[in-house]
Amino acid sequence: MSDKHNHSNQDQDPSEIGRRKFIAAGLGAAAAPLLFGNATAQAQPAERTVGAGPYPTRAWGITETAGKFAPMTIQRRALGDNDVLLDILYAGICHSDVHTARGDWRAPGLPCVPGHEIVGRVVAVGSKVTKFRVGDYGGVGCMVDSCGTCENCLADREQICVNGTTFTYNSPDKMSGGHTFGGYSERIVVAEKFVIRIPPGMDLKATAPILCAGITTFSPIRHWDVKPSQRVAVVGLGGLGHMAVKLAAARRADVTVLTTTQGKIAAARAMGASAAYLWQDAEARPELRNRFDLIISTVPYAFEAEPFMQMLKLDSTFVNVGLGEARGINPAAMAFGRKSLAGSMIGGIAETQEVIDHCFARKIYPDVEVIKPDQIAAAYQRVICKDVRFRFVIDLTSPK
Amino acid sequence: MSDKHNHSNQDQDPSEIGRRKFIAAGLGAAAAPLLFGNATAQAQPAERTVGAGPYPTRAWGITETAGKFAPMTIQRRALGDNDVLLDILYAGICHSDVHTARGDWRAPGLPCVPGHEIVGRVVAVGSKVTKFRVGDYGGVGCMVDSCGTCENCLADREQICVNGTTFTYNSPDKMSGGHTFGGYSERIVVAEKFVIRIPPGMDLKATAPILCAGITTFSPIRHWDVKPSQRVAVVGLGGLGHMAVKLAAARRADVTVLTTTQGKIAAARAMGASAAYLWQDAEARPELRNRFDLIISTVPYAFEAEPFMQMLKLDSTFVNVGLGEARGINPAAMAFGRKSLAGSMIGGIAETQEVIDHCFARKIYPDVEVIKPDQIAAAYQRVICKDVRFRFVIDLTSPK
Repeated sequence: MSDKHNHSNQDQDPSEIGRRKFIAAGLGAAAAPLLFGNATAQAQPAERTVGAGPYPTRAWGITETAGKFAPMTIQRRALGDNDVLLDILYAGICHSDVHTARGDWRAPGLPCVPGHEIVGRVVAVGSKVTKFRVGDYGGVGCMVDSCGTCENCLADREQICVNGTTFTYNSPDKMSGGHTFGGYSERIVVAEKFVIRIPPGMDLKATAPILCAGITTFSPIRHWDVKPSQRVAVVGLGGLGHMAVKLAAARRADVTVLTTTQGKIAAARAMGASAAYLWQDAEARPELRNRFDLIISTVPYAFEAEPFMQMLKLDSTFVNVGLGEARGINPAAMAFGRKSLAGSMIGGIAETQEVIDHCFARKIYPDVEVIKPDQIAAAYQRVICKDVRFRFVIDLTSPK
Repeated sequence: MSDKHNHSNQDQDPSEIGRRKFIAAGLGAAAAPLLFGNATAQAQPAERTVGAGPYPTRAWGITETAGKFAPMTIQRRALGDNDVLLDILYAGICHSDVHTARGDWRAPGLPCVPGHEIVGRVVAVGSKVTKFRVGDYGGVGCMVDSCGTCENCLADREQICVNGTTFTYNSPDKMSGGHTFGGYSERIVVAEKFVIRIPPGMDLKATAPILCAGITTFSPIRHWDVKPSQRVAVVGLGGLGHMAVKLAAARRADVTVLTTTQGKIAAARAMGASAAYLWQDAEARPELRNRFDLIISTVPYAFEAEPFMQMLKLDSTFVNVGLGEARGINPAAMAFGRKSLAGSMIGGIAETQEVIDHCFARKIYPDVEVIKPDQIAAAYQRVICKDVRFRFVIDLTSPK
């Protein structure tokens, strides 16, 4: 507990604080849907002790690679001095969850509970926590731990910790052993440093995807310093792509979308793009040659990259955040025009806080479709079929 | 002719100027070796008219792909108002000459006269030439013409003219028809805009390679703004690579060389590298991980790029100026650390002038081995076998 922040306890005997490693507060099961169903609910529930943990937690995961999602019980670790216990409210479904669960990259550790776009409510804090108090909203993105001392961590790039970032799920868990479990669950215990402060006025269900899709597209837009009137192309209009459009348009860039789906052309314009093309539309390409200051590819599969390189202006960059393999690039064609192919992956904790605050201030939110946990498998199928506008978010407020 | 600059004719009747399209001066054949053999020769030869052209010119070229080099006579166009006639003194042998002559990329236009690292002496200037006067030294790099009006030309990037750069050899010749002939020849006629001013005190034979190997490596060092103490790796220690080492070391960068040739390790250190490794030396790699702010690859063949990407620091760039295909790059590995793979090709005319002036001021020169025209074929074989320290330059002063 933080005696500085937990005002409701500020008059208690300070000697009491040392003996209590945490303060915990929560909601009765019946009250949860009512309060959390309103995304901007300000109601402060009465405090109650939830204990020091460990916390048996209901989760939705798979027990075999590419298997069916089913409810299961996982264990969340006992609250450490620097830990925060979140009651999870919403968890986004990222395309990488689908890849992981299907074993597209490698077989996941089992059982596998995906989810790294997590918004929850703080229900307990460890004795040394100063960043949160009970009742605050917190977000957890793609990582939950890093060494904190290597050059990358010191440079606010915890996602590439030299000693190994602990990702939010399917990652070796240095604290509890085994592997980490993600946000398709009712609770999570995370060190406060890795919990993002969510302003209470945010649209909570739409905030969840900002913690991966938002930061993943915000970071390159920020790094390559997109300026007003610059031309940005976004390849692929899914969860990442539609956030890229909104974030770039908010900087008053001139945004063009390249999609494989005819039905998304109008949507692209509606969310701020000045133009949208089917990327296979060869006729459109001549006018797109040497056009863009930055191309952000959100394509999660291998693709032919050369046509996109041709669309870059001199000295400009094609940044591949979708992690699909960029094939068939002619080195001479890159050399002409000094073009770059770059990677970028999420962002550090400070930058993730920045994108949350940035989106809150500008009311930039993803378009979400809220589902129940028993709809996860169907949602995965729709992600694969590109039938999502534009991010599924699992509502975890009800089943508690 | 320029009445402003051609002082030796400044007192003549201005009405005369219009009728004479050029002023021409030159040397008797016997005097040439004596005067031009001294690289910093300041002697001003007596003027003599060399005529308005066209100029039958002795050259060394091939008449079939991968064929033998032999003397031949080519035609240089008549001097236009904006043209300069150079007596060629030295021409470097670039690895791309070897690729072109052997048909490694595609069959060249025949006959093929390579050479795009040219230093010569101005022996005639057209009536509107203001940048040169007879007796000046001029350099010609990789290009001899561009539209001058497109957005790239206006941005001083004539090497990527939207309407088609005319390269110095084996390129469609929009002025004379056919294709262009390069510097393995005794004379060349080039529009003054594409002729670089060479300070008379330069080491002329060693200046030639700066016009391709120098600008090709200078441009990325300048563009990525290498700073003192930053760590730069140079992959491949040939003509380009050794210039990259010298240019980066001159900026007080900490330079590491990665070479395939044991015998070049010591040479790398001698020219300013703080360290040099055999790139296949796996043991060396752990200490090179996450080490470099910029990697400049001069490798002209396809190569496995992933080990080099691992050597980049966060946010850093691997720039492929050798145009070898960079294979096997894992997009996720690039994304971790936001690494970039970039191309870069020579530089524009203004930047080429800049590298000449930069090298002159700092006395930065390539290491050259001067050969005679009848040694070209043998030199090519030695380039292929990596047996050159570090650039062959053809001495064209003698055979005139």
